Amino acid sequence: MRIALAQINYHIGNFSSNIQKVKDTIQKAKTENADLVVFSELAVSGYPPRDFLEFDDFIDQCYDALNEIAKDTDGIGIIIGCPTRNDAEKGKPLFNSGVFIADGKIVSMHHKALLPNYDIFDEYRYFEPNKKFEIINFRGKKIALTICEDLWNVGNDPLYTLNPMDELMQYEPDLMVNIAASPFHTEQAKQRKEILLENVRKYELPLFYVNHVGAQTELLFDGGSLVLNAEAEICNELNYFEEDFKVIDTNDLQCNSAELKEFSKMELIHDALVMGVRNYFQKLGFKKAILGLSGGIDSAVTAVIAARALGAENVRAILLPSEYSSDHSIKDAEDLAKNLGCEYDIISIKDAYQTMTNNLDPYFNGLPFDITEENIQARLRGVILMALSNKFGYILLNTSNKSEAAVGYGTLYGDMNGGLSVIGDVYKIDVFALARFMNKDGEVVPENTIVKPPSAELRPDQKDSDSLPDYETLDEILYQYIELRKGPKDLIKMGFDEALVNRILKLVNTNEYKRYQTPPILRVSSKAFGMGRRMPIVARYLS
Amino acid sequence: MRIALAQINYHIGNFSSNIQKVKDTIQKAKTENADLVVFSELAVSGYPPRDFLEFDDFIDQCYDALNEIAKDTDGIGIIIGCPTRNDAEKGKPLFNSGVFIADGKIVSMHHKALLPNYDIFDEYRYFEPNKKFEIINFRGKKIALTICEDLWNVGNDPLYTLNPMDELMQYEPDLMVNIAASPFHTEQAKQRKEILLENVRKYELPLFYVNHVGAQTELLFDGGSLVLNAEAEICNELNYFEEDFKVIDTNDLQCNSAELKEFSKMELIHDALVMGVRNYFQKLGFKKAILGLSGGIDSAVTAVIAARALGAENVRAILLPSEYSSDHSIKDAEDLAKNLGCEYDIISIKDAYQTMTNNLDPYFNGLPFDITEENIQARLRGVILMALSNKFGYILLNTSNKSEAAVGYGTLYGDMNGGLSVIGDVYKIDVFALARFMNKDGEVVPENTIVKPPSAELRPDQKDSDSLPDYETLDEILYQYIELRKGPKDLIKMGFDEALVNRILKLVNTNEYKRYQTPPILRVSSKAFGMGRRMPIVARYLS
Repeated sequence: MRIALAQINYHIGNFSSNIQKVKDTIQKAKTENADLVVFSELAVSGYPPRDFLEFDDFIDQCYDALNEIAKDTDGIGIIIGCPTRNDAEKGKPLFNSGVFIADGKIVSMHHKALLPNYDIFDEYRYFEPNKKFEIINFRGKKIALTICEDLWNVGNDPLYTLNPMDELMQYEPDLMVNIAASPFHTEQAKQRKEILLENVRKYELPLFYVNHVGAQTELLFDGGSLVLNAEAEICNELNYFEEDFKVIDTNDLQCNSAELKEFSKMELIHDALVMGVRNYFQKLGFKKAILGLSGGIDSAVTAVIAARALGAENVRAILLPSEYSSDHSIKDAEDLAKNLGCEYDIISIKDAYQTMTNNLDPYFNGLPFDITEENIQARLRGVILMALSNKFGYILLNTSNKSEAAVGYGTLYGDMNGGLSVIGDVYKIDVFALARFMNKDGEVVPENTIVKPPSAELRPDQKDSDSLPDYETLDEILYQYIELRKGPKDLIKMGFDEALVNRILKLVNTNEYKRYQTPPILRVSSKAFGMGRRMPIVARYLS
Repeated sequence: MRIALAQINYHIGNFSSNIQKVKDTIQKAKTENADLVVFSELAVSGYPPRDFLEFDDFIDQCYDALNEIAKDTDGIGIIIGCPTRNDAEKGKPLFNSGVFIADGKIVSMHHKALLPNYDIFDEYRYFEPNKKFEIINFRGKKIALTICEDLWNVGNDPLYTLNPMDELMQYEPDLMVNIAASPFHTEQAKQRKEILLENVRKYELPLFYVNHVGAQTELLFDGGSLVLNAEAEICNELNYFEEDFKVIDTNDLQCNSAELKEFSKMELIHDALVMGVRNYFQKLGFKKAILGLSGGIDSAVTAVIAARALGAENVRAILLPSEYSSDHSIKDAEDLAKNLGCEYDIISIKDAYQTMTNNLDPYFNGLPFDITEENIQARLRGVILMALSNKFGYILLNTSNKSEAAVGYGTLYGDMNGGLSVIGDVYKIDVFALARFMNKDGEVVPENTIVKPPSAELRPDQKDSDSLPDYETLDEILYQYIELRKGPKDLIKMGFDEALVNRILKLVNTNEYKRYQTPPILRVSSKAFGMGRRMPIVARYLS
C-alpha cells in the first residue's frame, strides 16, 4: 500500500482554502499512485477552532467540507481530521474525529479517546471521549487509526485509564496511523519522537504519523511528520516548519538515517518564530510590519525575525529617541537597520514629551520625576508607532522578552503594545543566545547591541540591573517558578536568596494584570504566558 | 440541629485573611449555639484559584489552613470547601472537596462529582470527578453533602451520566447541604432557585445551600444562600451582593415568604457592578479610581457605579476635550460630576494632538484625515489618564460597553485602556436603561446625556449611527450571535437584513485581536467577553 503523508498548514475557519489545499493534495497523491492520503487532526476546521465549535453553523460547514472533499476521492482513500457530532443522548455534543473517506463515500468515523485538557488544551470543553474502537479495512490492510494524544499513554500517564491502541490490537492491525496537531515547544519534537518509538516497540507495527504544520496565532506547529517501521527505526521524517508531502510504500520501510534532522535549541526557536510571524501576517492578510528599534537586544532580535519572515522590504523600523537616549543607541539601531536592509526613520519624542509634561504639570502637584514620566515616554512612542500602523496598514510587532513580561518590567499601552509578541516566550539570556545564533554567518545584530548593559533609557544613566538582579539569576528563578511550578520553599532550598525569591515571585504574581492585556505571544516553551497559563488577577498568593 | 449559613467574601490565595474570616464566623456561630457551620465551595483558597492549583506550595497552604481552622472547632462541626489531593494512582491530582471538620479533627472529605468545564469553568483542568459517595453522620443527623454543580443534573443534563444525590439517597439522609460558588449573571439567581427547588421536590429533603459572595476579578458571586424545607418552600434567603450569616434550626423550617427578594434586571446589573468595582479595589488594596468623562452615556454610567462603589470622594473624573468636542459634552460631563460630587478637571488634548500630528506629518505622505487621527486623540487621552493614574496610584476604569467591544468600535491603547471594564458586558440599550434606573430617585445622569445621539466626537459632526446600525438592531443581532450562538442563516431567517448580518458578524470576528488586549470585564450576562468566550484571533470564519 502506498500512503501519502500530507503535512499542511491550515487556516482556522477558512473552509474554502482548507478544502482547496486538501483537494490539490489528493490530486497530487493520485498522480503518484497513492492508495491512501493521510491529513492531520482537525484539518477541515484548522486547529484549534476553540469556541467556534459551539456554533452549529460552524459544524455544518465542517460537514459540508467533508462532503465536498469526498467528491474527489474516486479511486483513492483519505483519512482526515474533522469535528463531528455526537448523536448519543448523553455526553458532549462533538467528537474530535478521524474520518475515513474512500471512493466518494464517507466510510467511517474514528473518535479521539484521550482528550488533553491541560496547559493550552481545552479539548474536554468541547469533545466527548471515544469509548468504541474500530479498525479501518482498506485494500487488504487493517489500519489502526488514532488521534494525537491517543498514543501518549505509553508511559502509564496517570491522567488516562484507557489506552486506545490496546483496544485496537484485538483487530490485529497491519499498521498504525496517527493524525496529530501537536504544538511545538523546544523539547517537544524530541519527546514526541520518543513517545512514537515507544508505541512502535510496544505494538511492533509500523506507524505513519502526520502532524499539523504552521502557526495558529500563538500556537506553533512544527510538522516533522514521521514514518517508523515495525523495528522502531525512523524511515522518513518530513520537513519542519513548512508544508511537506511524501508517498511511502508500506513494502519499503527501510531505516533512512541520512534523512534524520538535528536542531540546536536556538535553531528551533529561530525557525519557529520566523514561521510564527510569517503565518500571522499571511493568514490575517497583512504584508508589512512596523516596530520600534531602541538599539537594544530585544528589538534587534525581533527585527531580524521579522525581516526573515516577511522580507526586509516589508519591515519598517522606527527609532524614537528621547532626551535620555544615548548616542550609541541610535547608532546601534541604525547599524542593525542597515545590516538588514530595511527602511528606517528617526522620529524624536522630545517635543511630544515636552508638550505632554507641560500640560500635566499643573496636575502633578510638584511631585518628582518617577515611573510616571518613564511611562509617558514609552506611551508616546506607542502613539507614534500605532499612528503609522493605522495610516499605512502595518502590524506593530511587540518586542518584549519573557523575563520582563514576567516581572512587569514594561509599560502597558507603551512598549507592551503590538499585534503579536515575537519573543515574549524567550527569556533574556536566550535572547542573547538567539542574537549570537543569528550572527553565525556574519554580523546582523551589531556586536555593541549584544555586549552593552541592557537599559530602558527612560531616565538618566538607567540600567536594567538597577532594579532587577542579573538575568542569569532572574531567568533561572523564573524558569523554576513558571515552567516547573516550584514554590518559594523549593527555590530557597536550591540556594537562591530568600528575599530575592520572595521579591521575584511577588513581582510575577502582581503583574498578572499587565500580562492580561498583552498581545498573543508566540509559544516556544512548555509554559508560555497566554492561553496555557491561567491565573487570577485579583489574588494575594505570594504577593 | 442548628445550622449556620456562612456567606463570605473570600480573597483568592490570601490564606491569612480567609482563615481569619472563617475563625471569626465559627466564633459567632458558637455564641449562637450552632451545631454546624457551612462555608461555601473552595472557601479556603477562594474561587476560582485557576492555575495556582498546579503549585504544590499552594495546595500545601490549603492543607495548613484546614489544620489551622480545625483548631477552632471544639464543640462544633463545620463543612468547608477546599482543594484536596487525590492519592490514587490514576486521575487528576486534585479533588474539589467539601471537608467535614468537627471537634478539632478533620473527619471526612467529600468530593465534587460533576465538574463544569464550559463557559468560564475549567474544573476538569484540575480536578478528578468523584465516584465514591459517603454520608456525614453528625449529632444524630445524616447529612448528604454535595458541591455546587452536583445538584444541577436534575433536568437530565446531557453532560453528565451520574447524579450524586441519587447515590447519596441509599444512606437515607435527613437533609441536604450544597456548598457553591455559582457565578452571577442576570438570569442565574432565578435558574438556581428553580434547580434547587427541583432537587427538594425530587428528594423530599430540606436543603441548606451556601453560595460564595463577592467579586473575583471579572466573576461576580451574588450570594443569596437559601434554606428550603422538604415541602419545597423557601424558608430563608440570605442577602445578595454582600456577606451574610444566619443560624437556622432544622426543627423550624417554616416558609417565610416575607423574606423573599425580587430584583429587576437593572437592579441586579447595578448591584452586581457596584460590588464588582468595590471588591476589585479592596482586594487589590487600592482606594481611588480615575476615568475619562466624555459627556456621553457610557462614561456617565461608569462614573455613577464607581462613585457608589468607592464613594464620590474616591473618584476623579477627567474631561479631555479635543477640537471636535461639542460644548454640550463638556457641560453634560460637568453636570454629572457635580451631581455625583466628585472631583473633576478639564485637560485639553489640543496641544498634544497638534504636536503629535506636526511630528507625524512628514511621514504621512499627505494622506487625508482618517481613523489614524481619530485614534491619536483617543490614545493621547489614554496617555494623560494613565499618567495621572501612575502619579497618584489611581486605577483607571474602562468605560466601553458590550456593543462597541463586540464590533471593535473603540481605540486599542486609547479608550480601551483600564484596569477593569465596568460595563463591558452591558449592551448599549441596557446602558441607557441602567442610566434611567440610576435616575429613579432623582437625576444623577444628566437628561441630555441620555437623550442626545451617541457620538465619539473624534471628527466633525460624527455620530455612532454614521458607521453602525441603530443600537436596537445591532444589540439584538449581537445577542443572538454571542449569547445564543446563532449563525448567519438563523439570523437571516429571523428577518434581519443579510448584508447587515454578514457585516456585523464579520466585525465581531475580525475584532477578536482587540478584545484579546482589553481589561477584564465584569460579567453580568450568560456569555461575556473574556475567560468564558475563547476564540482564535487568526481565523477566517464569517469574516
